[in-house]
Amino acid sequence: MRIAIVGAGALGLYYGAMLQRSGADVHFLLRRDYAAIVKNGLRIHSVNGDFHLESVRGYQTSGEIGAVDLVIVGLKTFSNHRMVDLIRPLLNTETAILTLQNGLGNEEILAEAFGPERILGGIAFLCSNRGEPGVVQHLGEGRIRLGEFSGGLTARSRQLAALFEAAGVPCEAVTDLRRARWEKLVWNIPFNGLSALLKQDVTQLLTCPPTRELVRELMLEVIAAANGQNLSKPIDGPGFSQQMIAFTDRMDHYRPSMQIDREEGRPLELEAIFATPLQHATEVGITMPRVDMLYRLLCSGELDSSS
Amino acid sequence: MRIAIVGAGALGLYYGAMLQRSGADVHFLLRRDYAAIVKNGLRIHSVNGDFHLESVRGYQTSGEIGAVDLVIVGLKTFSNHRMVDLIRPLLNTETAILTLQNGLGNEEILAEAFGPERILGGIAFLCSNRGEPGVVQHLGEGRIRLGEFSGGLTARSRQLAALFEAAGVPCEAVTDLRRARWEKLVWNIPFNGLSALLKQDVTQLLTCPPTRELVRELMLEVIAAANGQNLSKPIDGPGFSQQMIAFTDRMDHYRPSMQIDREEGRPLELEAIFATPLQHATEVGITMPRVDMLYRLLCSGELDSSS
Repeated sequence: MRIAIVGAGALGLYYGAMLQRSGADVHFLLRRDYAAIVKNGLRIHSVNGDFHLESVRGYQTSGEIGAVDLVIVGLKTFSNHRMVDLIRPLLNTETAILTLQNGLGNEEILAEAFGPERILGGIAFLCSNRGEPGVVQHLGEGRIRLGEFSGGLTARSRQLAALFEAAGVPCEAVTDLRRARWEKLVWNIPFNGLSALLKQDVTQLLTCPPTRELVRELMLEVIAAANGQNLSKPIDGPGFSQQMIAFTDRMDHYRPSMQIDREEGRPLELEAIFATPLQHATEVGITMPRVDMLYRLLCSGELDSSS
Repeated sequence: MRIAIVGAGALGLYYGAMLQRSGADVHFLLRRDYAAIVKNGLRIHSVNGDFHLESVRGYQTSGEIGAVDLVIVGLKTFSNHRMVDLIRPLLNTETAILTLQNGLGNEEILAEAFGPERILGGIAFLCSNRGEPGVVQHLGEGRIRLGEFSGGLTARSRQLAALFEAAGVPCEAVTDLRRARWEKLVWNIPFNGLSALLKQDVTQLLTCPPTRELVRELMLEVIAAANGQNLSKPIDGPGFSQQMIAFTDRMDHYRPSMQIDREEGRPLELEAIFATPLQHATEVGITMPRVDMLYRLLCSGELDSSS
């Protein structure tokens, strides 16, 4: 199975490396890290043990990769305007596309461009950051929940889950991808949003009682909106928020991706993580006042220009 | 009439200087600016014309000032734990105390210590900053609305208003001080809070559509809470918020005091401007979710430690 990784940030590089290490035929579309990886390979510093791939197939254009069986998308969603063009040269009639991006709306873009039957989505619970070019820091977690954009469990989604499992990545195929995406938003909205706004890592946010309580309130708003989306099963508000907070309490000063994006002066993934979920909530008559306020604070001029 | 100014920041120095210039017998309790003012006097750079008081009565302790007829309090509310001790040496049996501090709860502290009959409160609409020691920048506005802590229009409150008017400070004596205080909170809560959180001045906040809308929503929450406080007359939500925003649109990049406090690493006036109003709202069963969220974001660890 030929696999292409599009969007080789910390997430794309980590999963691509895990798959290659397990014997998969992985092709990386690279930008920042191209020279370093082609020369020195790819190094993963991981809580589960470091490893180094000496020989990595890196490319600067999708055309050089050509058709593959599976495209794994790890692009930052603020680069989604480039996504379709980056993927098109990788497709034959059977190619499946799995997006592991954050937030809502990514599968929809892919489905519109390439047809819904190709598309799968996955939610990655991964704590990782990029280091110097060619190096990824894997700080913890890593499991994936993936499913068909059109819903249901398929042989294909089970096969993909097995592929990740064989590579040492805990992976579950889910029936209701939309529910899984909303569950992930329950984490992403408070922790990405507050960490970017306040420039505090998850441990700082959870140690300070006012923000810890705010995390919980934001989670409950997201869960209420999720439960208006006609999911296969409702999300339990108190239980799931409690579980997500306990899960995050175990992370040691983890900096969410949006905090890093802000600190490094990159755009923020506000469309996928805030605007689209807010719009879905509005469409079913549910307001998320605190989420909306956090979104607007993050939109505000200063965040894009200064710091 | 002997007047003492306690809390000689930009506000205390400005009003004290205006009163002295008009012939009043003003005594300033000074700290940071003591040496500079005793040596060089007090200089006001004002939109209404600069002036310089060559000889200013400055003191380092209240005991040196002794009893006065009127104490004007301009202390930052985060120094309220020192307020009673600073004022006590200034009182004889007739001394009136006028607090021009921000937010809620200041008159109550003074009334408990010195008896409610002495206490008046005033709301200052003043754009001013401290410059180098001995210099105040008066950027605009300046009018005061003052009233009796115990309510009602009195000869005393009218006299005080006349005193300020004679000094070139537009001043109105009001019947319902509590209503005036809540009206001021309609400005203070959004503009002080958001400017401190985002480090943006009022023009930046109002130019960016997401924060402009948030300002309006915060104002409407404060007005709803105010109208639950059994005021003499309700505040008109849409009209008053519109008026406050239009008033602020005319300020050119004004930095509210809380933004300056944060940027200069001082404590923030969160108790008087946020916690006490939130508590008064809760007591009458009204929630202010956005105000509460802004308060908690401002409370969060980073704001006190970093930046």
